[in-house]
Amino acid sequence: MLTNESVKVRSLGEPRFPSPLKLSTTPGDDVADFVPEGAGILYDIETGPGRPLAEPVVFERAGPRQKLFFDPAQVRAAIVTCGGLCPGLNNVIRSVCVQMWYLYGVKEVLGIRNGYLGLNPASGLEPLLLTPDFVDRIHKAGGTVLGSSRGPQDPAVSVDYLSQLGINILFCVGGDGTQRGALAISEEARKRGMALAVVGIPKTIDNDIPYVSRTFGYTTAIDKAREVLDCAHNEAKGAPNGISIVKLMGRDSGFIAAGATLASQEANFCLIPELPFRLDGNDGFLAALKRRIERRGHAVIVVAEGAGQDLLASEPRERDASGNVKHADIGLFLRDRVVAFFRSLDMQANVKYFDPSYIIRSVPANCEDALLCDHLARHAVHAAMAGKTEVMVGVWNSRFIHLPIPLIATGRKKINLESELWASVLVATGQPARFGV
Amino acid sequence: MLTNESVKVRSLGEPRFPSPLKLSTTPGDDVADFVPEGAGILYDIETGPGRPLAEPVVFERAGPRQKLFFDPAQVRAAIVTCGGLCPGLNNVIRSVCVQMWYLYGVKEVLGIRNGYLGLNPASGLEPLLLTPDFVDRIHKAGGTVLGSSRGPQDPAVSVDYLSQLGINILFCVGGDGTQRGALAISEEARKRGMALAVVGIPKTIDNDIPYVSRTFGYTTAIDKAREVLDCAHNEAKGAPNGISIVKLMGRDSGFIAAGATLASQEANFCLIPELPFRLDGNDGFLAALKRRIERRGHAVIVVAEGAGQDLLASEPRERDASGNVKHADIGLFLRDRVVAFFRSLDMQANVKYFDPSYIIRSVPANCEDALLCDHLARHAVHAAMAGKTEVMVGVWNSRFIHLPIPLIATGRKKINLESELWASVLVATGQPARFGV
Amino acid sequence: MLTNESVKVRSLGEPRFPSPLKLSTTPGDDVADFVPEGAGILYDIETGPGRPLAEPVVFERAGPRQKLFFDPAQVRAAIVTCGGLCPGLNNVIRSVCVQMWYLYGVKEVLGIRNGYLGLNPASGLEPLLLTPDFVDRIHKAGGTVLGSSRGPQDPAVSVDYLSQLGINILFCVGGDGTQRGALAISEEARKRGMALAVVGIPKTIDNDIPYVSRTFGYTTAIDKAREVLDCAHNEAKGAPNGISIVKLMGRDSGFIAAGATLASQEANFCLIPELPFRLDGNDGFLAALKRRIERRGHAVIVVAEGAGQDLLASEPRERDASGNVKHADIGLFLRDRVVAFFRSLDMQANVKYFDPSYIIRSVPANCEDALLCDHLARHAVHAAMAGKTEVMVGVWNSRFIHLPIPLIATGRKKINLESELWASVLVATGQPARFGV
Amino acid sequence: MLTNESVKVRSLGEPRFPSPLKLSTTPGDDVADFVPEGAGILYDIETGPGRPLAEPVVFERAGPRQKLFFDPAQVRAAIVTCGGLCPGLNNVIRSVCVQMWYLYGVKEVLGIRNGYLGLNPASGLEPLLLTPDFVDRIHKAGGTVLGSSRGPQDPAVSVDYLSQLGINILFCVGGDGTQRGALAISEEARKRGMALAVVGIPKTIDNDIPYVSRTFGYTTAIDKAREVLDCAHNEAKGAPNGISIVKLMGRDSGFIAAGATLASQEANFCLIPELPFRLDGNDGFLAALKRRIERRGHAVIVVAEGAGQDLLASEPRERDASGNVKHADIGLFLRDRVVAFFRSLDMQANVKYFDPSYIIRSVPANCEDALLCDHLARHAVHAAMAGKTEVMVGVWNSRFIHLPIPLIATGRKKINLESELWASVLVATGQPARFGV
Repeated sequence: MLTNESVKVRSLGEPRFPSPLKLSTTPGDDVADFVPEGAGILYDIETGPGRPLAEPVVFERAGPRQKLFFDPAQVRAAIVTCGGLCPGLNNVIRSVCVQMWYLYGVKEVLGIRNGYLGLNPASGLEPLLLTPDFVDRIHKAGGTVLGSSRGPQDPAVSVDYLSQLGINILFCVGGDGTQRGALAISEEARKRGMALAVVGIPKTIDNDIPYVSRTFGYTTAIDKAREVLDCAHNEAKGAPNGISIVKLMGRDSGFIAAGATLASQEANFCLIPELPFRLDGNDGFLAALKRRIERRGHAVIVVAEGAGQDLLASEPRERDASGNVKHADIGLFLRDRVVAFFRSLDMQANVKYFDPSYIIRSVPANCEDALLCDHLARHAVHAAMAGKTEVMVGVWNSRFIHLPIPLIATGRKKINLESELWASVLVATGQPARFGV
Repeated sequence: MLTNESVKVRSLGEPRFPSPLKLSTTPGDDVADFVPEGAGILYDIETGPGRPLAEPVVFERAGPRQKLFFDPAQVRAAIVTCGGLCPGLNNVIRSVCVQMWYLYGVKEVLGIRNGYLGLNPASGLEPLLLTPDFVDRIHKAGGTVLGSSRGPQDPAVSVDYLSQLGINILFCVGGDGTQRGALAISEEARKRGMALAVVGIPKTIDNDIPYVSRTFGYTTAIDKAREVLDCAHNEAKGAPNGISIVKLMGRDSGFIAAGATLASQEANFCLIPELPFRLDGNDGFLAALKRRIERRGHAVIVVAEGAGQDLLASEPRERDASGNVKHADIGLFLRDRVVAFFRSLDMQANVKYFDPSYIIRSVPANCEDALLCDHLARHAVHAAMAGKTEVMVGVWNSRFIHLPIPLIATGRKKINLESELWASVLVATGQPARFGV
Repeated sequence: MLTNESVKVRSLGEPRFPSPLKLSTTPGDDVADFVPEGAGILYDIETGPGRPLAEPVVFERAGPRQKLFFDPAQVRAAIVTCGGLCPGLNNVIRSVCVQMWYLYGVKEVLGIRNGYLGLNPASGLEPLLLTPDFVDRIHKAGGTVLGSSRGPQDPAVSVDYLSQLGINILFCVGGDGTQRGALAISEEARKRGMALAVVGIPKTIDNDIPYVSRTFGYTTAIDKAREVLDCAHNEAKGAPNGISIVKLMGRDSGFIAAGATLASQEANFCLIPELPFRLDGNDGFLAALKRRIERRGHAVIVVAEGAGQDLLASEPRERDASGNVKHADIGLFLRDRVVAFFRSLDMQANVKYFDPSYIIRSVPANCEDALLCDHLARHAVHAAMAGKTEVMVGVWNSRFIHLPIPLIATGRKKINLESELWASVLVATGQPARFGV
Repeated sequence: MLTNESVKVRSLGEPRFPSPLKLSTTPGDDVADFVPEGAGILYDIETGPGRPLAEPVVFERAGPRQKLFFDPAQVRAAIVTCGGLCPGLNNVIRSVCVQMWYLYGVKEVLGIRNGYLGLNPASGLEPLLLTPDFVDRIHKAGGTVLGSSRGPQDPAVSVDYLSQLGINILFCVGGDGTQRGALAISEEARKRGMALAVVGIPKTIDNDIPYVSRTFGYTTAIDKAREVLDCAHNEAKGAPNGISIVKLMGRDSGFIAAGATLASQEANFCLIPELPFRLDGNDGFLAALKRRIERRGHAVIVVAEGAGQDLLASEPRERDASGNVKHADIGLFLRDRVVAFFRSLDMQANVKYFDPSYIIRSVPANCEDALLCDHLARHAVHAAMAGKTEVMVGVWNSRFIHLPIPLIATGRKKINLESELWASVLVATGQPARFGV
């Protein structure tokens, strides 16, 4: 359970250098204010019957501090991007560089290449020096100019190398594996008495980081997925008993599937990891699909990659380099089962399968994500300069906050089947609330 | 000042019909719950030094109610879209129709044509009957299938006509003029003892409705404006001392200008209504522009249509049909002054002027806005069925709430020059915090 | 070999009705002219050393004729779309309807549903009556509003049904299978002495119809494929030794692969059906790929679906419902071989596979294709009204011409490895001219 | 009149260096062939009644020559972009650099900055050294990385500077003014006995260069204009008696207006420079517009910037820096006249005005234009290496040809009112063939 203790953010020590930012401490003078220590954002903001406001949990508010832990003249920062591509990586890199350079006057910002691999000197991957000129146009392209990689490295080796490079601030952009890696680096540095600020910028296109409303790349993913659903709709309508099956990302959470379903209003079924479902039986998925086909002559099915994993139980499992369980492919499984089902009924069905994953995650950020990346990067910079460490920046209740990295280990954010989001998916698809489970 | 009194929502009377929605009242059963009366969302969620949490203001939470004021079998609803185009209008129309039809079983939903004009039978504009088939694909296109118009109509005439049509729920999609019109209709109906639920869905591409974080159409506007800023950047770079001036929407508030500036990172100046500025003098805008040109050889200027109105004071003012003050054109004024300024210095300047307004507001909604429209429409439907009236649905702190329409009269939402948003614009542009004022 | 005999177009009989079009026969009066019988377009327009201009082959020129075979008041037309989706189908349907309606005053235009299946009354698929209102917005969407299907139907059944419907003009939109079907229908009708004009509008996203420079949908396909190549590039750059393999359409011809390669300039290898290649050996593809990876650290490979079929010789072959040989999947085969190859070398390789086919073919037509569809449809209408039959409309040397349908049987258009197009692909990719073959 | 004399291309002298390209002279060996001297493309390819094929005019075919005038080791080339922006400029720059570098091994390719201004050393604009790395990504962006400018420079000064830089090949990308400037430079160089190959790449978004079927940027312009017409349609439909007026580029020719009209199928009137029109009277434009409004309640009007100039006769004329006559603004004139006309009838009209010019010309090239730019640049490089001079590359009857620059002076390409293109515009709009003239 979330407590004010568990949301407390670690600091490298007492901030003592004055911030070079020309901000104010007086509201109302039309000059932006420093955020005072102690400023917070309420975790739970809903009130009403059965909701006592005992001692509320309060997240630490992000923003520029009046006193810094680091003397800007002494700072050498590095940024690393890890894991799979996600729209907005270049925006984050660009904005961290620009904010460091222009806000705090820090001109030593290194780009570590190919994820944590680049923190191992044996890789031969030299860091890049990031300058405003170098990063000027990078946000127009998808991908990451630094490259990425999966999987952990030995934290001792990484800290040796960081120390050798003279790095005292490290920005880690990545998902939960990356943040666990960041924690390991920070702990190793602390053990050695090295004042290294480790600041995470959470990256998961699946939008499944707990206590973070929205991660960057998510709305861009929905934009692209919507285009694919439009195509799937056209294909389904274009053939007798046309059935389009679209597999979307979402290993543990169905946010992309649900969001794309709502945005397009073209899907007739949306299957997500949070919703167990049965294929067979009169209240199973296949029977519901048959009814839809009989009634309308076509159907579009969206399935998140992590849905229906229990149905695949007999298939062998692997782990990828980051240690994530690789899912047996529900999309192909579903396609084969749908084809076999209609064949068994001797009923025509034109089944088409869509797997757009890489096409969705490698595009440039849309505006919404571009703004989010800019804000996250700026707050990461403020946090690091103030000496916050083992901290992630995030957005909660529309405010930017600091979250202790260990909180990420408490699980993944999932779609609440009682939420408005899911209720609206049920209306948009017209699918039954349950498929036999 | 906002009080719990001022945010109280008016109701047509005691709800007494059971909702046909198959929801639950028990959290944790994986079935979405009705929202109980008394449920609220905190207005202010920031805590910290100097922020006493006295008696907090709480907005009424939106959502499905267990008891309805209307018997669905007796409902005849209408929806009207007023004022200028805004991305998402068709999404709202579609979603209101679909939710009425499938959630509540209300099959009588009329579309009033050409705004309030269509509530005047003298216009000869017959309402359309909206059905799921009719609205099926409308959200793929910009504009509004109902048409729109500006300006008020006599509320007595409107209520006569609504009464004659047998309408008991009226959804009014529009800006503050439209909402004032909605209020007038509601008051007229109340005077007559007619149980008419009037529910507003706020529409302002400028995003300037008070107590509403974000209105639909706004992020789509930024998407399109970003494309224009990319063009403006190319034009500015393409000629010696190239200067591109882009006028964006924002009559009283600079949200579109600021958002597009941040999303594109291509603008070097961003002028908004909230920031008074002087053109002349060493700390004026023109001198700052000259310094930029001398340093970099090109510049992109974003100016909101409502910026610098004091500079235009001598020019004549008109009002449009909705009664809004028509602004003298700051964009053309600025262009002429910039051209004259460089000519007076005998310095080459290639000035190009962009006025993309209609191109920005008439496109289909992007995904973010499509989702917002879907949610707003659904909540408007829930509110109406529960008998809420003179109420707008909105989003605040990421939650959907009910707002009494009269609150809209308390002013416009503006960019706080002390906010993070504006601070980040200053970094992105590199412009001085003040231009001589 | 092409002769003036083989390009001669069949006619239903002597045209005798005056055209209702208000055109001229006098050049220079600023009124468009009828195209006289006998007007032609040269097949071969290149001259020079070793190119004797003996008796040149001349295609019949398309365009409005002064005399019609059909009395417009007696015409009942039908249009059918067959085979896989292709961008522009709705544009063709719309334009055929509009031209019939407004140019010739023919108001009976039926849309046959789901391809030739809809010409079998046993299917239960009623034809749609196409009107300008019905087709008004259809060109904004991909797919086909008529639906489609694959495979032939019994021509006797089709002609029975056409006769029963009173159809005297049939427009067949589809690839070579469809055109063979059109021929069979026409022959059956002729046998019966029925004056049925059968006019083909060639549809192949692969752009592989002989004697047709460009088929509709092709440039849209390249537009979408280019987006995918940009993604593939980002993915390849985003990981150590990143390799992206993109399978594009092109069963017998590599036009889409080549066009997308040129347009994006992001591919490093382009494999097409016309170019046999070997995988192994020092001058094989895999060795070339290894050299590229060693030199640059990433690679993008484009492979047309019909490339390297000899390498798959041992795999079983199927035919689809249209009778086309189904290719064993070269994309997956190549992916597996690339992965195995680098594993055998103990060399890291991050291989990502893209199969965007349905996403490419189901989008709306781009402008270039929209224009092409409009022209093709209009010329098909002119040809039909003039009584041309067993004829396709096409574009050659930038002019619109009539082609006898049987010409389509002479083979498929392929990329000439000596052409400018292929030469420019070699420059754009930097790939060797041969891979061991 | 075009003669074989007038299309003859000038050469710097006898080619004597063997080409480094590994091409063949034997058709059928699957290796691309050199283009032999004497190879040509027929100008007129239409045959038929009244079209005697006397001595046909033959354009010189573009392509790689077996013998070069220049020894690649001695070449120093330069490229300059002049006049207004046009989609594809960066593609041309990139492709010229890449082809020079990789095909011919020429590594000295300079980019002249800001048009001909950069050929005047007094401008202080140092040329850029173009390398494959520098140009790698530039085609993803609109504009020109070299910058541009308008207006001529003293050819003597330019030739002095070119001589000083050691340039022997100059690529001039621009419209007719630019090509006249190229000619002046070439003549000056010839006078001095300097072997300077001057090769033009015609640039006009208006597509109005004579003897060139299509110039780059034109189809991109139509793509973007179509988006604007969709917006205009939405605006027109969104208000009672809504009228949208869209001014598109086209100073002397209406190709963009006509193309966008056809591609969108949304315009109801298309006014172009080639079609004189009257506003008043029963067969004038305003009366036709009134009839349309009465019938349908909305209208979209496309007007090319050069249309109706006689109507503006009384207004003062200026010339821009390139010497082009600046047109009085027909768009604003038309808007004012339409507003006044309906006001005089006391008839409501909601008139909206769109002027998207800079937004259309500063975007990146679409695929079609990207391919065209690549081909044009490659052929320009081949031509220059072979010692062709005072020559433009162009496309005619779908083939790439060489055109003597002086041909450009013979006039502008215009829409033939008797052409298929214009006939199809009349169908798409439904407008009368004449407006009172």
